[in-house]
Amino acid sequence: MQMFSQFQQSFEQYLHSRTFLYEPRGLYEPIDYIMGMGGKRLRPVLALMGYALFREDYEKALPIAMTVEVFHNFTLVHDDIMDKAPLRRGKPTVHYQYGLNAGILSGDAMLIYAYKFLQEAGSPVAIPALLQAFNQVAIEVCEGQQYDIDFEKRQDVSIPEYLKMIELKTAALIGGSLEMGAIAAGAAREDIQNLAAFGRNIGIAFQLQDDILDTFGEPEKVGKKPGGDIAQNKKTFLILKALEIAGPDTKNALAGYMASSPEKEQEKISAVTAILQELNIPALAEEVKESYQQKAFNHLQAVNTPDNRKEELRRLALSLMQRQS
Amino acid sequence: MQMFSQFQQSFEQYLHSRTFLYEPRGLYEPIDYIMGMGGKRLRPVLALMGYALFREDYEKALPIAMTVEVFHNFTLVHDDIMDKAPLRRGKPTVHYQYGLNAGILSGDAMLIYAYKFLQEAGSPVAIPALLQAFNQVAIEVCEGQQYDIDFEKRQDVSIPEYLKMIELKTAALIGGSLEMGAIAAGAAREDIQNLAAFGRNIGIAFQLQDDILDTFGEPEKVGKKPGGDIAQNKKTFLILKALEIAGPDTKNALAGYMASSPEKEQEKISAVTAILQELNIPALAEEVKESYQQKAFNHLQAVNTPDNRKEELRRLALSLMQRQS
Repeated sequence: MQMFSQFQQSFEQYLHSRTFLYEPRGLYEPIDYIMGMGGKRLRPVLALMGYALFREDYEKALPIAMTVEVFHNFTLVHDDIMDKAPLRRGKPTVHYQYGLNAGILSGDAMLIYAYKFLQEAGSPVAIPALLQAFNQVAIEVCEGQQYDIDFEKRQDVSIPEYLKMIELKTAALIGGSLEMGAIAAGAAREDIQNLAAFGRNIGIAFQLQDDILDTFGEPEKVGKKPGGDIAQNKKTFLILKALEIAGPDTKNALAGYMASSPEKEQEKISAVTAILQELNIPALAEEVKESYQQKAFNHLQAVNTPDNRKEELRRLALSLMQRQS
Repeated sequence: MQMFSQFQQSFEQYLHSRTFLYEPRGLYEPIDYIMGMGGKRLRPVLALMGYALFREDYEKALPIAMTVEVFHNFTLVHDDIMDKAPLRRGKPTVHYQYGLNAGILSGDAMLIYAYKFLQEAGSPVAIPALLQAFNQVAIEVCEGQQYDIDFEKRQDVSIPEYLKMIELKTAALIGGSLEMGAIAAGAAREDIQNLAAFGRNIGIAFQLQDDILDTFGEPEKVGKKPGGDIAQNKKTFLILKALEIAGPDTKNALAGYMASSPEKEQEKISAVTAILQELNIPALAEEVKESYQQKAFNHLQAVNTPDNRKEELRRLALSLMQRQS
């Protein structure tokens, strides 16, 4: 984790040097507010690590690291509006703090700034490839968000559809961060593709891990009480798998809980969790998660750089998986 | 106007060949809806004309024409949300037709698509310069929108502040459309700058013309009854100029009308229009408009291309001014 903390620190320093102290403040203050909320800075660190696999001077990748972090925060601002979320990291969300219009317009400005930082990244020769990669990822994230919204209203979401949705909404940007770091470093096309595929598959594994931990994690380690997804009737991998393999009675019981009133929350969480246990869902989910993880590591193995550099990425992926479980 | 109609037709054809028939439909249908609403297609035609000043094969500039048109329509979708506007061109606005979340998310996707079309524009060599020019314009448009929102709540907006706001919100993209056309054509830096300055100044003149016509235009020619800005208490150039030069009594009367109830709309429009006439505001506004127009034509004159090509642009600018008055 040494490299991770070093890159985290470098990125935080860079972020502080690039605060949005521009006019009009009504546009830029909300951007500083959300960018200053902190977090693991996973995506920018991945961009730096993608670069560092191929070149030493990783500071050159700081603008592209900003691209992915500003973009990620833009999605948080607009998604929080769509989800009517009042809080993020224990603080008021941007639209709660500054109003709906500020949430929309400052979010728009952040999306444009993501492209402004890209423009500073690497040599002009790398810009067309960076732009193409970023455009692709950015539109996938929007498509993933739309599928997520669509799935809330649908009762027949299949597991392949769910996996595609989390790939677009979450994993594409994890893969894209590594990919853009590698493009900025001038890596070979095949290495870029393998690294992107590593990130995309590990991103899907992360999300499956999140799904598992939300119901089955130890509260002290995860930092929240279990069952949030069940309470919100989220159709996670766990629920979709259960609906797929359950007999008709269990299926009906599950569907009943998924439509039950919020007053009986704790009862509902306990009952659904018991059904998932009974159907052996945690082990099945773990299996699928590990298959994505393995696929990810195979792609990483195929990247042509010294093993010690790749080892950092491998350890980071494993530690992020273990940290929470 | 021959070239204008030819470019308009080419662009409409290209637009039809690039409909957003992708999945998920919830994301892309609103985009097809707004892009199909029509309009003069002024900005894409300007991008094509900016290109055609320097090269014959103007079809190559169709992607960059799409960039500016998709971007312009993105701003309409998000601005309509912020303004709570129910109608555009006589049809329901995107968020009225498809809901708030669709308006936000489809707008976001349009902004990304503007960059996707840019990626297809011209040779890879031109991409970094196109990206830089577009980023600059895009962020200026957001800043202009924020100033416009801020000014609604302020009583002390100065005329230079107002001119800056319309430059950012409206004129920057007019100038940027010509500029990006010229960049895609590989024009010389000085020519690009002069063309951009032509567009920016003519864009300010357009907006001042709009301000004048909204109050003093002939309804049959303008296509709406006069006084909409006055009814909405908009602080246009006319009002700000009047507040600047009026004596204390007239100033108080004006301020009173600007805070008056919507029931007395027609009375208010007549009274404010009379004050503006009395203060000779139409002539003063015309003067300022013409100074921007003259400044614009001086920049156009300085562009190094044959006069007959520039003449088309000059005639277009003049006809757009005359068409409505």
